Amino acid sequence: MNQEFPVTPRSRVRRMHNRASHAWADVHAVLDAAPLCHVGYVIDGEPYVTPTIHWREGNRLFWHGSSASRFLRQIEGQRVCLTVSLMDGYVLARSAYNHSVNYRSAMVFGRAQRITDAQASAAALRAMVDSLFPGRWDTLRPMTAQEAKASTVVWMDIEEASVKDRTGPPGDPEDAHVPVWAGVLPMHTALAAAEAAPDMPEDLPLPPELGALIASGRLRGA
Amino acid sequence: MNQEFPVTPRSRVRRMHNRASHAWADVHAVLDAAPLCHVGYVIDGEPYVTPTIHWREGNRLFWHGSSASRFLRQIEGQRVCLTVSLMDGYVLARSAYNHSVNYRSAMVFGRAQRITDAQASAAALRAMVDSLFPGRWDTLRPMTAQEAKASTVVWMDIEEASVKDRTGPPGDPEDAHVPVWAGVLPMHTALAAAEAAPDMPEDLPLPPELGALIASGRLRGA
Repeated sequence: MNQEFPVTPRSRVRRMHNRASHAWADVHAVLDAAPLCHVGYVIDGEPYVTPTIHWREGNRLFWHGSSASRFLRQIEGQRVCLTVSLMDGYVLARSAYNHSVNYRSAMVFGRAQRITDAQASAAALRAMVDSLFPGRWDTLRPMTAQEAKASTVVWMDIEEASVKDRTGPPGDPEDAHVPVWAGVLPMHTALAAAEAAPDMPEDLPLPPELGALIASGRLRGA
Repeated sequence: MNQEFPVTPRSRVRRMHNRASHAWADVHAVLDAAPLCHVGYVIDGEPYVTPTIHWREGNRLFWHGSSASRFLRQIEGQRVCLTVSLMDGYVLARSAYNHSVNYRSAMVFGRAQRITDAQASAAALRAMVDSLFPGRWDTLRPMTAQEAKASTVVWMDIEEASVKDRTGPPGDPEDAHVPVWAGVLPMHTALAAAEAAPDMPEDLPLPPELGALIASGRLRGA
């Protein structure tokens, strides 16, 4: 109940800390709302940020890539900062200073590990597919041994984490008399109507669970 | 004409390099399509990734934050990797291995510098506002000296950069006979109908340039 990640010098939110939380549930909610994260790590003292799809089991995060990737080959044991951000709108105030963005973001810290066991890797890839499209894995052409070898799954346990968000209209009542339009331009990301592959036999309808995902307004199935 | 960023060990694209470009125009197009970037840098040997709004003049990128930010105070002269990613859809193939994402992403490297001159800082903040909402700066309550001091603008010249993208249907014709739905679930991010601030005098209509921005399907004005 109401479990929290430890607040450390790394994860303590200094600015606008009233908008922040370290609660597991709040961190999970942001991580689960977006399919895309940005993974930051250090190679030879220099920063790299790569976008990738993540998925989660409890406080363990997963992502994957090519086994030939220079990043994944060097990532074992490396400290990682994984950030997920959803932009929900522009906040237009009467002054430049009070302009803002409505958003949700999670910043998560841990140490990356590669999955080396073939069975564990296959199970993780199954969890990835089904976290995006529930039930899809069992409908697919089975993975070959060569395909399994070509993908590397990376995981990290969340050691520290924080989330921040902002919602609502501009907060500049002292300027309400200034004669300029103020308010929010909401920003939404959504899935649109499915486009069938041109080379697919015509009699295969869109599976109901994909139709449900599109209709849900969510960006991932689970 | 067709100018390119240098291809270095840092910026050379190893995986799927057929999807990659180092051309200025391609890098600029991705940077200009999104309001949000993820800035990665190193403090005491550890990686941090923070989301923020960026803007651009030629090959110079800008972002800003609170002058009290621990990040911005330590960023001067630091090497930065700034990444912009737009997810355009899920690509569902007949095998897990061939699933993919349609996307555009730019990874840009440089060295961060803070603007210390007050006039240059104000000019940059004006460029930020007008890059999102053309012409808005001149309609706002003017910035106070205190507000100007509270914001720090950071810039970096793009030293190395690469973009990658993927478009189109799944590329697994060898599996076209597998009886599972395949295709693309497009993903779109768009601005929605403006929400006026509750404390705004009722007679202020939405400025036409904001209406045009919403209708354009773009996420930033310039």
